[in-house]
Amino acid sequence: MDFFDVVHTQRSIRRFKPDAVPDEAIWKMIDAAIRAPSGSNTQPWGWLVVRDEGKKRVLADAIRAGFEEGGRLQQMRENAAKIEDPTQRRMMERAVEFFGNVAAAPVLIIPCLVSLTSPVSNIDSLFAGSSIYGAVQNLMLAARAQGLGTVLTTFNIAHEDLLRREFGLPDNVRPVAVVPVGYPQGQRFGPTTRKPAETVTHWDGWGATRDR
Amino acid sequence: MDFFDVVHTQRSIRRFKPDAVPDEAIWKMIDAAIRAPSGSNTQPWGWLVVRDEGKKRVLADAIRAGFEEGGRLQQMRENAAKIEDPTQRRMMERAVEFFGNVAAAPVLIIPCLVSLTSPVSNIDSLFAGSSIYGAVQNLMLAARAQGLGTVLTTFNIAHEDLLRREFGLPDNVRPVAVVPVGYPQGQRFGPTTRKPAETVTHWDGWGATRDR
Repeated sequence: MDFFDVVHTQRSIRRFKPDAVPDEAIWKMIDAAIRAPSGSNTQPWGWLVVRDEGKKRVLADAIRAGFEEGGRLQQMRENAAKIEDPTQRRMMERAVEFFGNVAAAPVLIIPCLVSLTSPVSNIDSLFAGSSIYGAVQNLMLAARAQGLGTVLTTFNIAHEDLLRREFGLPDNVRPVAVVPVGYPQGQRFGPTTRKPAETVTHWDGWGATRDR
Repeated sequence: MDFFDVVHTQRSIRRFKPDAVPDEAIWKMIDAAIRAPSGSNTQPWGWLVVRDEGKKRVLADAIRAGFEEGGRLQQMRENAAKIEDPTQRRMMERAVEFFGNVAAAPVLIIPCLVSLTSPVSNIDSLFAGSSIYGAVQNLMLAARAQGLGTVLTTFNIAHEDLLRREFGLPDNVRPVAVVPVGYPQGQRFGPTTRKPAETVTHWDGWGATRDR
């Protein structure tokens, strides 16, 4: 696929066909991920690929339980039902369904930042992200280029202890995202819409925007 | 260009032709950047494009001065000269030259994280990077797809006050990188080499690597 077609049609996919994702497709995603730049080319990453149904279920149950606390998921469901615009309503219903059943994705990929020198507690600055989230973006674009859907989530934040325990993460390893992967069901890829580039591009000084 | 060709041949470019980079090429880079996912699709970014020679010079001088402190740049230069392998030596010499003259790049793009609710001091967690560094990667890939070289630097960390002052960044805006952009001089794009995917892919548990 053409590079710009891939970039302009990547969108968050939250409903997946049950079809298995072949090993070869996963290798191709990770081969793309690791081409991204990292500080001093240290490549400080690991890619945890989860297909085991039991392990996916443990994580998905914890995520659902988190959303159900204080009736939050039910509230979201009721709010979604009241949305008048059918496209908006369907999007919201799909998000609620997704939060309740993350294990429905055939694969979860959990990108991890790996420190060669520090315990994980020291890996917590905005700028450390420059050596991993570019690689995560390559991973997701390479999925799109193969017709696979992904969605970037940070469920890892609320469930780091569980991930650490369930997958045996060492002290110098920190999960930075949870990326469900699968063939899209009932959802098409983009083109996506965004705030126009003209409104977020500043020429030689903040606030100096202009038309093209 | 084919998507996978772009991804597998992106490499850090640190020497640039003096040729100007057309507006159209910059718009195309930013149009790609803003397609990346962000938390709740908030698109919390601004793209500061610096072509003004005076402003580039102020930043480049500060970067050089930072490296010259305690004779660091001279030491790096001497160390580089001692490297026996000619490829390694040239790479190191190029890095030293680059640190001393960042303004030689025709354009510097400074991606910024923009918070709608917080002063910038609160934007400092590893996970906040998930909403900006993927977009930075799109930006750099879109440069590569147009034959433009880039290199991801974090000179912003040591020079945030200067950037803030020189470019009038508001309190809710935080620079996350400094990306020089230009047509490569005497440097070719990849393919790049990396630690093999097999060594950094863990199947259903940390440490469970395997051949393909």
